[in-house]
Amino acid sequence: MTGASRARQGGAMIPLPPPMRRALDAAAEAARAGEVPVGAVVMRGDSVIAVAANSPRALHDPTAHAEMLAIRAAAAALGDDRLQDCDLWVTLEPCAMCAGAIAHARLRRLFYAASDPKGGAVEHGPRLFAQPTCHHRPDVYPAIGEAEAARLLRDFFAARR
Amino acid sequence: MTGASRARQGGAMIPLPPPMRRALDAAAEAARAGEVPVGAVVMRGDSVIAVAANSPRALHDPTAHAEMLAIRAAAAALGDDRLQDCDLWVTLEPCAMCAGAIAHARLRRLFYAASDPKGGAVEHGPRLFAQPTCHHRPDVYPAIGEAEAARLLRDFFAARR
Repeated sequence: MTGASRARQGGAMIPLPPPMRRALDAAAEAARAGEVPVGAVVMRGDSVIAVAANSPRALHDPTAHAEMLAIRAAAAALGDDRLQDCDLWVTLEPCAMCAGAIAHARLRRLFYAASDPKGGAVEHGPRLFAQPTCHHRPDVYPAIGEAEAARLLRDFFAARR
Repeated sequence: MTGASRARQGGAMIPLPPPMRRALDAAAEAARAGEVPVGAVVMRGDSVIAVAANSPRALHDPTAHAEMLAIRAAAAALGDDRLQDCDLWVTLEPCAMCAGAIAHARLRRLFYAASDPKGGAVEHGPRLFAQPTCHHRPDVYPAIGEAEAARLLRDFFAARR
């Protein structure tokens, strides 16, 4: 069952920008694999460059957050370690590691869904892009698809309690 | 020419803990490949689990800092996304991305050589391990092999000006 069909089954189908729809579907895929449900997409204009699901357990890789995998796949696909004309869409506020990677990759815009008061590093904790030493700040657009992203996370952790 | 022989040629040979010697040699290797000279080693007790040189340009990967590559290689080698009984040795103060990865990997101790007032995130900028939301803090030992690490960086950037 895709994230889209789950949202439909849940009742109100909220129209979302297609990249966030793809990111939410990747998050649902992560949940089915037993990983914390977070998904990410790198876009260049209207083209999908990379889609990734959070996979640290399956890959035995503590850095394998959805954002990191999507950034790495996009950079590999474009043959460049900078993604200056690309945007990142992710279902959860990035942590410090991922926000740092977003700055290193010079991503133009960051769109995210749910806030993360515990682990987020954009509007919470170190607020990395507001640090004076931050060398690149993407334009940030939060709360796009927030309800569905938060529900995926809530359901995932509830099922594990 | 290895980093060790360069240090000897330079005059005073400062004895260093073997893991930092390995990390400095990896940093020199990065410089020879045209990458910013930073090297990292993951140890478990006296065993070297992974050694890596900074390689974002060669790998077309903005996340390919020495620390990230060493952490990923160590986690893959041990088949675990946590490196709880491991230590990281790195020639430069980690940035926010790498400090975040160190916390995610649950590394026990962090040893580093040169400080990085511009990009560092341990004793500078966001001081990530001092943030209230930081979920794991390694024991931190700075300034081990600092002079040689700083010289490698200085020589690298001087040659590029």
